[in-house]
Amino acid sequence: MKKLAVIYHSAHGHTEHIAQHVAEGVQSVPDTEVSLVAAGELTSMPNHLLAFDGFLFGSPTYLGGVSGVFKSFMDSTGGLWRTQQLKGKLAAGFTVSSLPAGDKQSTLISLFTFCMQHGMLWVGNPILPEQHRGVPYDEAANRLGSWSGLMAQAGHSAAADSFVVGDIKTARMFGRNFAETAHRLSNETRQ
Amino acid sequence: MKKLAVIYHSAHGHTEHIAQHVAEGVQSVPDTEVSLVAAGELTSMPNHLLAFDGFLFGSPTYLGGVSGVFKSFMDSTGGLWRTQQLKGKLAAGFTVSSLPAGDKQSTLISLFTFCMQHGMLWVGNPILPEQHRGVPYDEAANRLGSWSGLMAQAGHSAAADSFVVGDIKTARMFGRNFAETAHRLSNETRQ
Amino acid sequence: MKKLAVIYHSAHGHTEHIAQHVAEGVQSVPDTEVSLVAAGELTSMPNHLLAFDGFLFGSPTYLGGVSGVFKSFMDSTGGLWRTQQLKGKLAAGFTVSSLPAGDKQSTLISLFTFCMQHGMLWVGNPILPEQHRGVPYDEAANRLGSWSGLMAQAGHSAAADSFVVGDIKTARMFGRNFAETAHRLSNETRQ
Amino acid sequence: MKKLAVIYHSAHGHTEHIAQHVAEGVQSVPDTEVSLVAAGELTSMPNHLLAFDGFLFGSPTYLGGVSGVFKSFMDSTGGLWRTQQLKGKLAAGFTVSSLPAGDKQSTLISLFTFCMQHGMLWVGNPILPEQHRGVPYDEAANRLGSWSGLMAQAGHSAAADSFVVGDIKTARMFGRNFAETAHRLSNETRQ
Repeated sequence: MKKLAVIYHSAHGHTEHIAQHVAEGVQSVPDTEVSLVAAGELTSMPNHLLAFDGFLFGSPTYLGGVSGVFKSFMDSTGGLWRTQQLKGKLAAGFTVSSLPAGDKQSTLISLFTFCMQHGMLWVGNPILPEQHRGVPYDEAANRLGSWSGLMAQAGHSAAADSFVVGDIKTARMFGRNFAETAHRLSNETRQ
Repeated sequence: MKKLAVIYHSAHGHTEHIAQHVAEGVQSVPDTEVSLVAAGELTSMPNHLLAFDGFLFGSPTYLGGVSGVFKSFMDSTGGLWRTQQLKGKLAAGFTVSSLPAGDKQSTLISLFTFCMQHGMLWVGNPILPEQHRGVPYDEAANRLGSWSGLMAQAGHSAAADSFVVGDIKTARMFGRNFAETAHRLSNETRQ
Repeated sequence: MKKLAVIYHSAHGHTEHIAQHVAEGVQSVPDTEVSLVAAGELTSMPNHLLAFDGFLFGSPTYLGGVSGVFKSFMDSTGGLWRTQQLKGKLAAGFTVSSLPAGDKQSTLISLFTFCMQHGMLWVGNPILPEQHRGVPYDEAANRLGSWSGLMAQAGHSAAADSFVVGDIKTARMFGRNFAETAHRLSNETRQ
Repeated sequence: MKKLAVIYHSAHGHTEHIAQHVAEGVQSVPDTEVSLVAAGELTSMPNHLLAFDGFLFGSPTYLGGVSGVFKSFMDSTGGLWRTQQLKGKLAAGFTVSSLPAGDKQSTLISLFTFCMQHGMLWVGNPILPEQHRGVPYDEAANRLGSWSGLMAQAGHSAAADSFVVGDIKTARMFGRNFAETAHRLSNETRQ
């Protein structure tokens, strides 16, 4: 059994909507338990992270980075950093903004850097963009072209569930690949 | 006259100490007015930024990025982004952490990305490391090797003014170069 | 008079096509002279860079970074770095790949980091995405959402001139803004 | 048995020296076979990568990124990208420059981005800096403070084996941790 957590911040529901689809992708792999956790709730109790084998971290992209709420959660894990208690766990990242590129890559790099400081392993979004194979753009897996983590696009004023089919499909594939990778990884280290 | 602001967050005084030396470097250039402003105070009044010709943004590096307090300030400028009211102003960044490299470069990249979204121009830290010319490491300008912005190093438990001579010297040179560059830049655009 | 150079590498003509439109945007500003230069030709004569007041560097994005040819050009400027002869000049970057996001931001960050080491000033792509104001996606300025530099999208197997209207328009605006900024910047420094 | 490769470029021997110590760290883990391969030799035969379970990629930092030789090797793997034949393999990165920070983090981010495009998993350098625990700076593991990958420091004109004790020690720990992680990772995927 692998215990995995989708930890996210969402101000208007868009990132939460993607988080739910990521979680469903995770859940589709047998012997996997997934928790959806709001990052803001963890800020006062970061040790709750110790209960999990791996994390999928998600934040909207605000001005080229994670949200202030999400960064405050990240900062709250300083004590875990000093004791390296998250070392060796599996991590991935996802982000949402209103434009196709939209500086989402710098948000993913921030999440990656954070997880590296904690000594985690990083899983990206290893999916070939399907429009190269003739699938319509809006329906294609990894249509935006992101491998370091998952990107999804939604307008600020659009409904929280207004993502195109391709982004939802990619979110599920991303979650599924993460869980499959978690099952490839033994918790025991050969010394 | 150029009006420049050093906008910083400092939890334990280290980044504030560097901010003060940066400001002194700025002040050393004639016809320059410099303000030291805590980022947290601007979060509720981001339009205060409109009063300045340029900004030197500074944050400690926490887990590979700006602090949560600083990111919340950044997020508060969303309205200025939509109206591009900061477009064409001059910007630079500085950061402090307890190790020589310490993922400070990713913090500088975050500050850069933020300023680019606002349409600002970016000035780095154009200083050749002096230890290559025989100056002792602790006394050398740009001893850590950073050009995208200013880096300084101070232990968490060290006193706020415990920086080595080289870092203080670099902070002043960085501030001075910024002010000189501001004076090279006309506020009028040829259309 | 400002002398500006568009320095690019293009294997299949896509980046060259964008470079030409960037150059036309630069040229549209009075008292501006623009040169289109292949990066590969400069590798054996990097001092040719000294003739210009500013540079717009462009490379395709190959596997998340500039092309090998472009990086070899960058490496050839090591002597100019040691003497800081490019210090204070103006710089910007652009890149092309086949997907909307496509890790183009990391290519722009590489170009930025390179220019910072040389002590240059960086101008981004300060354009609000027009589709937010009702312009159709393919015709909108900065439709992809990039501010650190210019992004354009073209399929590998597509013709070199197959860019959508929005990307061509953005390339010209990007070039024009760069030239306007160059004219704002005096070559004299107040000491 | 895990087959791992240290793939590097070294112009003056510094990066090669570190690569050898990384390889010794890898080799110290039982049931592990390690190959030292010059990146330049792989450029004409990238399919040779298929023989390995994981890679430790190393390049000097030249002007804020991997060397031109190393980037040309990276570009040569385009065919493997299209077929995703490296998907699921393990990867890590290391870099050398002459200053403590020295924009080495952007080199590591370039290596990371490259490996993500190939669908690999990333292992960092999960080592707490030892000088925080009283070890002298030059002898401390991870003294420079880098977690996304390994950093080492050597002057351009210094002998290729002139690294301080701390950097050599860190290189071995980095290699060892990579090999241990490879043994944690099954080659079979639960579908």
